[in-house]
Amino acid sequence: MATQRIIDFLATRRPAGPCLVVDLDVVESNFGAFRKALPNSAIYYAVKANPAPEVLRLLAALGSSFDCASVAEIEMAMDAGATADRISYGNTIKKERDIARAFDLGVNLYAVDCVEEVEKVARAAPGAKVFCRVLTNGEGAEWPLSRKFGCVPAMAIDVLVYAQSLGLVATGVSFHVGSQQTDTEAWDAAIADASHVFRMLAEKGIVLTLVNMGGGFPTRYLKDVPSAEAYGRSIFGALSRHFGNRIPDTIIEPGRGMVGDAGVIKAEVVLVSRKSATDANRWVFLDIGKFGGLAETMDEAIRYPITTPRDGDRMEACVIAGPTCDSADVLYEKNPYPLPITLTVGDEVLIEGTGAYTTTYSAVAFNGFEPLRSYVI
Amino acid sequence: MATQRIIDFLATRRPAGPCLVVDLDVVESNFGAFRKALPNSAIYYAVKANPAPEVLRLLAALGSSFDCASVAEIEMAMDAGATADRISYGNTIKKERDIARAFDLGVNLYAVDCVEEVEKVARAAPGAKVFCRVLTNGEGAEWPLSRKFGCVPAMAIDVLVYAQSLGLVATGVSFHVGSQQTDTEAWDAAIADASHVFRMLAEKGIVLTLVNMGGGFPTRYLKDVPSAEAYGRSIFGALSRHFGNRIPDTIIEPGRGMVGDAGVIKAEVVLVSRKSATDANRWVFLDIGKFGGLAETMDEAIRYPITTPRDGDRMEACVIAGPTCDSADVLYEKNPYPLPITLTVGDEVLIEGTGAYTTTYSAVAFNGFEPLRSYVI
Repeated sequence: MATQRIIDFLATRRPAGPCLVVDLDVVESNFGAFRKALPNSAIYYAVKANPAPEVLRLLAALGSSFDCASVAEIEMAMDAGATADRISYGNTIKKERDIARAFDLGVNLYAVDCVEEVEKVARAAPGAKVFCRVLTNGEGAEWPLSRKFGCVPAMAIDVLVYAQSLGLVATGVSFHVGSQQTDTEAWDAAIADASHVFRMLAEKGIVLTLVNMGGGFPTRYLKDVPSAEAYGRSIFGALSRHFGNRIPDTIIEPGRGMVGDAGVIKAEVVLVSRKSATDANRWVFLDIGKFGGLAETMDEAIRYPITTPRDGDRMEACVIAGPTCDSADVLYEKNPYPLPITLTVGDEVLIEGTGAYTTTYSAVAFNGFEPLRSYVI
Repeated sequence: MATQRIIDFLATRRPAGPCLVVDLDVVESNFGAFRKALPNSAIYYAVKANPAPEVLRLLAALGSSFDCASVAEIEMAMDAGATADRISYGNTIKKERDIARAFDLGVNLYAVDCVEEVEKVARAAPGAKVFCRVLTNGEGAEWPLSRKFGCVPAMAIDVLVYAQSLGLVATGVSFHVGSQQTDTEAWDAAIADASHVFRMLAEKGIVLTLVNMGGGFPTRYLKDVPSAEAYGRSIFGALSRHFGNRIPDTIIEPGRGMVGDAGVIKAEVVLVSRKSATDANRWVFLDIGKFGGLAETMDEAIRYPITTPRDGDRMEACVIAGPTCDSADVLYEKNPYPLPITLTVGDEVLIEGTGAYTTTYSAVAFNGFEPLRSYVI
């Protein structure tokens, strides 16, 4: 996943300190793969995955729409060339003044998952379109999914009826099957739930038109993942099964699947040591850790591929940790990570598949370390 | 813990968005309590807990020394008025070029915990003083302590002998009993280990002079914690027990204990909802969460006191979550948090005991949200 362009950039520019390098060619290729896999779905890139202006400009030029979590993200997408009709305010938790600001900017599509949020949207964005997020079980996803977003389908019916009664346009249903979802069939149950909500609303005279199928499309870390094409086939099959010949408009919101494998973090080995003469594992300390961009190693959820200049030498399992004075800043300990026995202080390593959910997760100044730098090439 | 000065500041200034307000009078009072509790120990404030320039300037003026985790923190402490002889480079994981930079700045005291780090210090800071960190078991601490820092005492002996052989001054031993340590006796075993290392080194003709007893001093969250005086008595007792009438120079490194209760975060309720008509718990969403400064709610480790304008009304357990589109951004779910049943969108809440480990943990721009603002008064 370290493309030749990334390798050449690092070799030529020799940036100091840890940094992320993103290859736009990979982003473009991923966008093409999604478009081909789901030709009838609109692609709303999840800006939070990586809001680098270069990434947003490329995707805007390719025709992508944008799923935004905040007014700041809406402004970034518009600065990159997206018009307001290509933006979804996808966060179900919004301040009313932020909804008003988005509405002023022309945004007309809002996520809700309860009557309280509907009331805010009705006041601050009168007449706008809303979709209601429903809960899914998240099975098969590698990044922890909580019950934070969405409501049960029975409640979604009430929420959408209420929205319509307040003058909003009840436009559809959204769900998210969990990030880094490696089961291509995971969309089936949620699409079934969506079709149920469609039918119940139709009985009340409200015609829904949109299913927002969210993200969840994986990046290849250490294990192979299904292709975009495989997801497309499975999702199209589920839509046909549950909606018959009245397939609604659909949206997908790839974030990790769009930029994850486009980025590589260059890091440096700061220390290799053992805790005692008989310690089973070496400890390898890098100049990046959980607070410097690798937050998704929380609970060792995401296990990034790491390449070193010593690959080929004998491997031995290590604990990998970050550079801060925080004892929680340990990346892989419960399940130690094999690295070459010859790895030593000053070696540069490449942490692959790090294009998504790294730069923006980075702490602003923890232990005085600056946030992760990023180069988009 | 919201002092009148903080309450008045918030009432007068009405800052928009979530923010931390730190009352310097509380910091000064905490410094005085530590000085009184351990009059013979030097106080090295752990800069990482809160590096606000106003906090550092106050502590520098009061005579504090500084425990720094990086060159950036060393520079901040010196900018605040600390001379280099009042600075310890306390991170056991340092790049050699950072050691060299600290040495150029005049810093002469370095933490190590393995021979590899000793070699770096010997090359980059010839003749400097080093102390070796030993592992402790961390029992009684509320913030997770890993084996990340330190080595077993038997290895510490070798590390210090090696340091002396490379021209460094083997000066002592350090340890950390775990952050938010509520057991005043927790220092005893570590001080015993330190005295053992002192004796073994003395047999080899090396006279150690310093025990760095680290931090761990708690902030009061929901439960009462022992006073600084109680810690002082217990620690002095342990020093007397294990060192007899040859008590060495000692250092303490309070961070949380110095600034935790000096700060209060003002946040806003963005949404209150349920996931279904029969949901047992309400969900209360704030405009600050795990990625906006409350990282220490990871695994629900730290449970902050929260006050609301509706306190006194009937309470009901809630799930509390942050404002981002990340399903991991949930603060209290396994162990729901009682909040007034009348709490509603737009209410301002105060999250107390948040002066330490909040601003700098804050993500740089996750979901487009800006880092936590801070006001020091």
